[in-house]
Amino acid sequence: MTEALFNQAITKWMEGTGQESTYVISSRVRLARNLQGMPFPHALSTPLANDLVQQVKTAVVDDNDTTTEPLYFIDLKKIAPLDRGILVDKHLISPQHAEEADGRGLLISADESIAILINEEDHLRVQSLLPGLQLDAAWQRASSVDDRLEAKLDFAFNERLGYLTACPTNVGTGLRASVMMHLPALVLTNQASRQLNSLAQLGMTVRGLHGEGSEATGHLFQISNQVTLGRSEEEIISNLAVVTRQLIDQERLARHMLQKETQMQLEDRIFRAYGLLTSARILSSQEAMSQLSYVRMGVDLGLIPDVAPAVLNEMLVLTRPAFLQKAAGREMNPLERDIQRATLMRARLLQGKHTNTHTGGCCHHHEE
Amino acid sequence: MTEALFNQAITKWMEGTGQESTYVISSRVRLARNLQGMPFPHALSTPLANDLVQQVKTAVVDDNDTTTEPLYFIDLKKIAPLDRGILVDKHLISPQHAEEADGRGLLISADESIAILINEEDHLRVQSLLPGLQLDAAWQRASSVDDRLEAKLDFAFNERLGYLTACPTNVGTGLRASVMMHLPALVLTNQASRQLNSLAQLGMTVRGLHGEGSEATGHLFQISNQVTLGRSEEEIISNLAVVTRQLIDQERLARHMLQKETQMQLEDRIFRAYGLLTSARILSSQEAMSQLSYVRMGVDLGLIPDVAPAVLNEMLVLTRPAFLQKAAGREMNPLERDIQRATLMRARLLQGKHTNTHTGGCCHHHEE
Repeated sequence: MTEALFNQAITKWMEGTGQESTYVISSRVRLARNLQGMPFPHALSTPLANDLVQQVKTAVVDDNDTTTEPLYFIDLKKIAPLDRGILVDKHLISPQHAEEADGRGLLISADESIAILINEEDHLRVQSLLPGLQLDAAWQRASSVDDRLEAKLDFAFNERLGYLTACPTNVGTGLRASVMMHLPALVLTNQASRQLNSLAQLGMTVRGLHGEGSEATGHLFQISNQVTLGRSEEEIISNLAVVTRQLIDQERLARHMLQKETQMQLEDRIFRAYGLLTSARILSSQEAMSQLSYVRMGVDLGLIPDVAPAVLNEMLVLTRPAFLQKAAGREMNPLERDIQRATLMRARLLQGKHTNTHTGGCCHHHEE
Repeated sequence: MTEALFNQAITKWMEGTGQESTYVISSRVRLARNLQGMPFPHALSTPLANDLVQQVKTAVVDDNDTTTEPLYFIDLKKIAPLDRGILVDKHLISPQHAEEADGRGLLISADESIAILINEEDHLRVQSLLPGLQLDAAWQRASSVDDRLEAKLDFAFNERLGYLTACPTNVGTGLRASVMMHLPALVLTNQASRQLNSLAQLGMTVRGLHGEGSEATGHLFQISNQVTLGRSEEEIISNLAVVTRQLIDQERLARHMLQKETQMQLEDRIFRAYGLLTSARILSSQEAMSQLSYVRMGVDLGLIPDVAPAVLNEMLVLTRPAFLQKAAGREMNPLERDIQRATLMRARLLQGKHTNTHTGGCCHHHEE
């Protein structure tokens, strides 16, 4: 299990399955939890932090409860920085969690859809990450893990406020739900800014693929709830689902409009992107992302056969610096990475042409 | 013969044969001649111009001389403007000659390597156009046609000045020799301007593919002698050949340098160009030219198999507005042409992948 975790780019959320997977790459729910009577991680000494990691590990891994899904423990300081980078690239841990490894841990399920980050910003961050629009399922899974933890651990909880967290923006439910959406047609028809800016008024935050501060390259937008307090978990989840469905409708309309009014220009863009990604010998991360977006739309519209959505998701991660260097087994300078990225992209996109699978390459092992 | 002339883009100079055909697309020699005692064409009435056309036609076509190459007569006012456009696109006549058709004629050999323009700027413009570096052969062919004409017609000639012409820049030999060169590496290594500017001091003029005033798109440069007076024909031809060989050496060196120092960047450029031309659904003439240049270099360097140089030459002409509309059998707006151009480009470039011929498509008939 650990081998696949670090060697394969494909992970649960990339499967290209789940509802509305054309528009929603993944759904994520995370719960922030802290242990009663312990300083928050930023104020925690390393020995105490390590004690806390052990305490959580014991409660979850060593509980010998065969009725629950097994979780595997990873001591972040015992794995190489490059491997921590891989966990970041796969969106399983945050860049912050990878940076300082001592006193930090990770519990993860075999399919990588459940991750518990120990001593990130909070003592515990329970994350459930699923492909497509599956906010309810992600919430159910996170909640059930939360129940399992709460049965063994004493959480910091205030009757009036709810769960207490290191940052006040998480106080209350401690819940952050998000969807990663692909909205190229809204961007191409110049509707994205207007549509997405209006989400702030509904208590939603919009970010790019790589979280806070990242730009929306590849027409990928992460939409999440801003408010965690004063609403129930179910309300938060359901509000986000409503907003997501509205955006899906808008994107669908925009695609119809593009197809109707500028069919040839659209196809030109899509096939040029495919041509570029299957031809380039040097490919920057930025260009790969932007062009993959058009290829994805081409696959969605049935213009490009033989490329599975899972492959496109995989390429978002496989072409990140950490993965490229992992695959090459050595550190690489930016030009070397751009060359490696181009080689990989060609191989993977053209591979479908011959095998014609719908899951693409290395995810086979993973899905067993 | 006439059918191929108007329906096939491929013509003698595109064959991709001849010496140094990697660097020299074609060699051209033209002689300006005028009939004694007749006003130059710009001062010639239409009836007199038509008389002159008939006179030349009678002298050349109706001479029943079976020892010389047959020339076919085309009355420019009897063919459609689009067909005149096709002759321009194939570089067989000048745009000026196509514009006003009445009182103008064309005599052309079956392989299209010899063309006599009647009543262009001068009464007669004898042109010999061959593939590759074949200035001597082109000169010999033009000269032999000139002898044949001179045997029947009385040319305006001054003992001191030589042949008299409508424009003083052609007085003397009336000879303009030119080569069409492909010099991408000189451009990419920023040596082109310096190298080509210095040619002016040697009495040479540099232009783009489409003659006077045209930019050097596609890294194609037409180099010709500026001076026609005070030098023998042989001197003019040999000077141009020397300059051409120097440029070939420089270009060859520049390619070696690019391959040695920036191999991957060079391959990236080349394969991106190939990817673009085989993927785009909308393609401007300008973009087609620029990208064809890189594909041509890729073919030269052995990076792109299955594309014949003749096909690349053909695409320079086949993708021009007149040819596109001829092929479609109707007038087209610019967007329609760009779509047609892209369709044609894909079909032709990918065709080689299956048939693996070395002459490409429609030139088979032509070469019989």
